[in-house]
Amino acid sequence: MNFTPIDPNFESRVRASFDRQSAMKTLGIEIKELKAGWIELLMPYHEAYSQQHGFVHAGIIATALDSACGYAAFSLMPNDAAVLTVEFKINLLAPAAGDSFVFRAHVVKAGRTITVCEGQAFAMKNQASKLIATMTGTMMALFQRGDIKH
Amino acid sequence: MNFTPIDPNFESRVRASFDRQSAMKTLGIEIKELKAGWIELLMPYHEAYSQQHGFVHAGIIATALDSACGYAAFSLMPNDAAVLTVEFKINLLAPAAGDSFVFRAHVVKAGRTITVCEGQAFAMKNQASKLIATMTGTMMALFQRGDIKH
Amino acid sequence: MNFTPIDPNFESRVRASFDRQSAMKTLGIEIKELKAGWIELLMPYHEAYSQQHGFVHAGIIATALDSACGYAAFSLMPNDAAVLTVEFKINLLAPAAGDSFVFRAHVVKAGRTITVCEGQAFAMKNQASKLIATMTGTMMALFQRGDIKH
Amino acid sequence: MNFTPIDPNFESRVRASFDRQSAMKTLGIEIKELKAGWIELLMPYHEAYSQQHGFVHAGIIATALDSACGYAAFSLMPNDAAVLTVEFKINLLAPAAGDSFVFRAHVVKAGRTITVCEGQAFAMKNQASKLIATMTGTMMALFQRGDIKH
Repeated sequence: MNFTPIDPNFESRVRASFDRQSAMKTLGIEIKELKAGWIELLMPYHEAYSQQHGFVHAGIIATALDSACGYAAFSLMPNDAAVLTVEFKINLLAPAAGDSFVFRAHVVKAGRTITVCEGQAFAMKNQASKLIATMTGTMMALFQRGDIKH
Repeated sequence: MNFTPIDPNFESRVRASFDRQSAMKTLGIEIKELKAGWIELLMPYHEAYSQQHGFVHAGIIATALDSACGYAAFSLMPNDAAVLTVEFKINLLAPAAGDSFVFRAHVVKAGRTITVCEGQAFAMKNQASKLIATMTGTMMALFQRGDIKH
Repeated sequence: MNFTPIDPNFESRVRASFDRQSAMKTLGIEIKELKAGWIELLMPYHEAYSQQHGFVHAGIIATALDSACGYAAFSLMPNDAAVLTVEFKINLLAPAAGDSFVFRAHVVKAGRTITVCEGQAFAMKNQASKLIATMTGTMMALFQRGDIKH
Repeated sequence: MNFTPIDPNFESRVRASFDRQSAMKTLGIEIKELKAGWIELLMPYHEAYSQQHGFVHAGIIATALDSACGYAAFSLMPNDAAVLTVEFKINLLAPAAGDSFVFRAHVVKAGRTITVCEGQAFAMKNQASKLIATMTGTMMALFQRGDIKH
């Protein structure tokens, strides 16, 4: 789906907000590609964030997918909006075993208040890519909230 | 609800598996209390895991709640089972602003293969506790999988 | 949890809207009890709405729980609001086998725009009650929408 | 995605099970097209299943999508399996206003026990099609359960 962004400067706005997420820096997650209503993130494997079997913890996969969904949504919002996650659901399809991970999210429905996004996580190993998780997230645009800025 | 655990040594089994989750150690999450089908975890505030508004990232809250749900389920499983998360859904009710965070999860339905859990996250600030998120998670018992041990 | 309703006449407002849901009448679903932020519905068994094993179809259980969540939320909204379901998630814990079914929902977090509810479905058989499903639903208050009235 | 069905006679097996769902007959829902891991259902508009604004009730949309997900999953299962819904989540993107409705579901991940599906609902009006809901569902294969047959 192609979206026309309300804010022509969405890219710098998304990147500035993403850079303020300490969690992304700490986890080594970076934006690989960004379009209006679409984003791709990358994360290396971290032994420090694994679960009891050595795979990346489902919650860390969810962290990256939530940011992906949030910024896909945020890219289509007006420039005075802040974005918050209302809720998300994630299905874990395969163990998060890989050398690195790719996360893609796109907007399914952009509304004035509510935006719904879908995301997919892939484990990369020896040049092969495997779908390991899917997310559906409900994002909300907030306006004029002193405590919550973009 | 009161559950009778199949494995009378569930507590040491749960704690040993929890200790193998590097993600818990890295995030400073600890078990505060554990009963059959019920668990409480604690996490300090981490600026390093915040999102763009300075609150703890929704995915980090999800990470703790997912482990809480997983170990509440695992406590009721037989001692040769491994536990994996099939899926979870989280609703974010308020910003994750606090000095520390408490996570509680309990088993709603324990089955041979599928166990369903519910969890709640609370932000603690100045001795006050605020509900910030709820999770429903579907957990699965795996047996005789060489690559996935408890 | 006890809620103070914004609209003291919430009960007649909820009942009037419920009565406009043809789906409730067709399925024989009735309000048994109603409080601010809390509701209980009843439904008889219908062979006409069963799935392939003779149990009530999961979607019909979801229909009743969605209405329960919606009206629990609606009871706390101001009297010029309309309510719509943003999303819900249901876990099916046991087959919907029973002579009749009870559905309870309560508000977990009431916000100006978004209200989050939880619901539970019980199958009744020979005076015994069994938990068969749980729902978490996200409801939204709409204002000044000509096409969507309460 | 293309799937190779374990059971070459999946089509007659799916149709026979679908025909046993009284709920489908009662709601006038029919299979329009069926492939291995993919299905399309049709439903006319029913005033009898509307909510308070005259749109089709979200739970009825969920009923059709749940059957679509269930049968997409069932088509890939061996011929001695029964299928049950573990859980599903639905996002309502637009009012279910239309002359008729189309439901599509496909398998995202087919496992021995757990199969994950995604579905989409469309409202049809004056030859135009509008996406009104998306579902993610977790389906389970059951074997040798006397009370639950396909």
